[in-house]
Amino acid sequence: MSTFPRSYPMSGGDDQHSYINNSSYQIAAINSVREKTRQCIIEKLDLPLNSDLGTFRIADYGCSIGPNTFHVVQSIIDAVKFKQVDAKNEISLMPLEFQVFFNDQPNNDFNTLFRTQPPSSEREYFSAGVPGSFHGQVLPRNTVHIGHTSYTTHWLSDVPENVDDKNSPAWNKNYIQCNHSIEEVTKSYKAQFTKDMKLFLEARAEEIVPGGLMIVLGQCLPDGVPLFKTDQGILVDTIGDCLMDMAKSGLTSEEKIGLFTIPAYFPQFSELKTEIEKNRSFTIETMESVRHPLEDIPLSNQFLISMFRAILSTIIKEHFGEDVIDELFDRVAKKLAKYPIDFKECEKNVTYFLLLKRK
Amino acid sequence: MSTFPRSYPMSGGDDQHSYINNSSYQIAAINSVREKTRQCIIEKLDLPLNSDLGTFRIADYGCSIGPNTFHVVQSIIDAVKFKQVDAKNEISLMPLEFQVFFNDQPNNDFNTLFRTQPPSSEREYFSAGVPGSFHGQVLPRNTVHIGHTSYTTHWLSDVPENVDDKNSPAWNKNYIQCNHSIEEVTKSYKAQFTKDMKLFLEARAEEIVPGGLMIVLGQCLPDGVPLFKTDQGILVDTIGDCLMDMAKSGLTSEEKIGLFTIPAYFPQFSELKTEIEKNRSFTIETMESVRHPLEDIPLSNQFLISMFRAILSTIIKEHFGEDVIDELFDRVAKKLAKYPIDFKECEKNVTYFLLLKRK
Repeated sequence: MSTFPRSYPMSGGDDQHSYINNSSYQIAAINSVREKTRQCIIEKLDLPLNSDLGTFRIADYGCSIGPNTFHVVQSIIDAVKFKQVDAKNEISLMPLEFQVFFNDQPNNDFNTLFRTQPPSSEREYFSAGVPGSFHGQVLPRNTVHIGHTSYTTHWLSDVPENVDDKNSPAWNKNYIQCNHSIEEVTKSYKAQFTKDMKLFLEARAEEIVPGGLMIVLGQCLPDGVPLFKTDQGILVDTIGDCLMDMAKSGLTSEEKIGLFTIPAYFPQFSELKTEIEKNRSFTIETMESVRHPLEDIPLSNQFLISMFRAILSTIIKEHFGEDVIDELFDRVAKKLAKYPIDFKECEKNVTYFLLLKRK
Repeated sequence: MSTFPRSYPMSGGDDQHSYINNSSYQIAAINSVREKTRQCIIEKLDLPLNSDLGTFRIADYGCSIGPNTFHVVQSIIDAVKFKQVDAKNEISLMPLEFQVFFNDQPNNDFNTLFRTQPPSSEREYFSAGVPGSFHGQVLPRNTVHIGHTSYTTHWLSDVPENVDDKNSPAWNKNYIQCNHSIEEVTKSYKAQFTKDMKLFLEARAEEIVPGGLMIVLGQCLPDGVPLFKTDQGILVDTIGDCLMDMAKSGLTSEEKIGLFTIPAYFPQFSELKTEIEKNRSFTIETMESVRHPLEDIPLSNQFLISMFRAILSTIIKEHFGEDVIDELFDRVAKKLAKYPIDFKECEKNVTYFLLLKRK
């Protein structure tokens, strides 16, 4: 009955391995740009905030299952309301109503999202879930006043061409991610990323009203740094190594691993900038790297493992079967205990903040 | 983590007992009024169907999990598009875009709804799920052009006062529904129904634009007929009898049954009409009973049991526990095999069709 393309949501539900309980790294970044986001909305949002606007519509693209998305949305509403008062917008008898669209893939766990949202008595907005890939248009033209997305744009719409093909020079061998160690693989990933970023921005250009904003928070690499040198890159490579160990023990096969590669690409900062600049529908109001609050804190193995388990379980299960997960992450924990990541020596990902304004 | 009031969605998922696979009675009625709905939209919808309208918004209130809701929505879109051409509305460079809001309680199985909707390539609309009780406003003011609901308005927002209180004259004893056999019970149910219908219409009046339509398909009773004389009333009373049998076998308790009563009320036709007429925001364009296509066909026991199992499982499970379901419906099947419903002698529910237009 599946009617949607391949997609791998964050782990649903609310158990110990769920995204709900393992997304504090993401929320830390979101919180750290809260004030910046607020200022951007106050300064750059270019809409009459009176009742003529009717409904003020906010969309969170790739919202997953909360609670991060609820915090983000509330901050945006607070900023818009502040601006409304601050700008002494014409007082109207009908206060502005807010509608929030929570978008994610159709196989996202919307049931959990809806069940855990703030109760309507504490919610200043009407909520709606929007199932669909954000690489296409998911909302009508000219209906969104502020769009937001965080930690999503590295996800590709599909596994890039040839990287899972043993006979191609772009084969990613036994690596499970594009870690920048094989040039042809990087090229193929980058081509897909370029295409997907274009689709993402074109779709948002349709949906967002002139004068409206698109806020993007995400992760990329410092210029000149390959993913395999960063702590997170090393962690995912370690997951790949453990899969190989499991293949040796007969718990999966090397062939299976050769066919598996995560559809996510982390561009370097200037690479990302180039892609964003190609779009002509938005002006770039801000594009900068921001300090992640956990940047200088050596993250515990357990924290990193739990975070990546919540992010990657769905996709690993789909390829390798449900059974491998516990064993795999046990092995990752043991391997990291034996060979800890040298946080002092390794490179760090860059958290970037991007503010686009619809022309 | 529950943040919503008590509500009892239709059985989720897509197994043999799911609402998805046991809602053909409802879809038969929906299909039977398809042409009428189409004509109503063509004749009564009072909106300029050109690009100035922007997005054409449709809401299905109490949509459950499909596939019925998808059929309804498509029919409505087809009618609007026909009207658009027929009325020779100004041709615009930008064709109208449709957005459909699928509303139901937050514990409805939206995941199944989203996973089973027509693929985006075959869908002419953007879809959004709206979690929330339709007894309150769930969408912003003046944003819906056509609202629809079918087989929902008999559901109450809560169990009426005192009907589960052993010490009240309005106690419903061991009946599990308001079958009209105890006058005080009927009174209490009716008071709740009056209140809920008022809330429902007030909320729709906020959401629907002037000139827009609200289409209601539902079930009531012929004037003067108590529920306990209808086939469906008899069936639910039989479920109650079987619960009592189970209490005698120690599989549940009489006390538990005394505390249980289904929060649904079927008014008689003129009673319903009075409630509708109280609302001053809509004109009643049509209110009539329609022939249900299965009306004259004696429904098999299996059909009736499966239908009511899909409708009532969630609420029965919540009160009596998951374990009772299989046993209970086995007993119902056996009882009906032994004492079949006399379809010739018993009364029938009335299917009604209501078209309201927002002033």
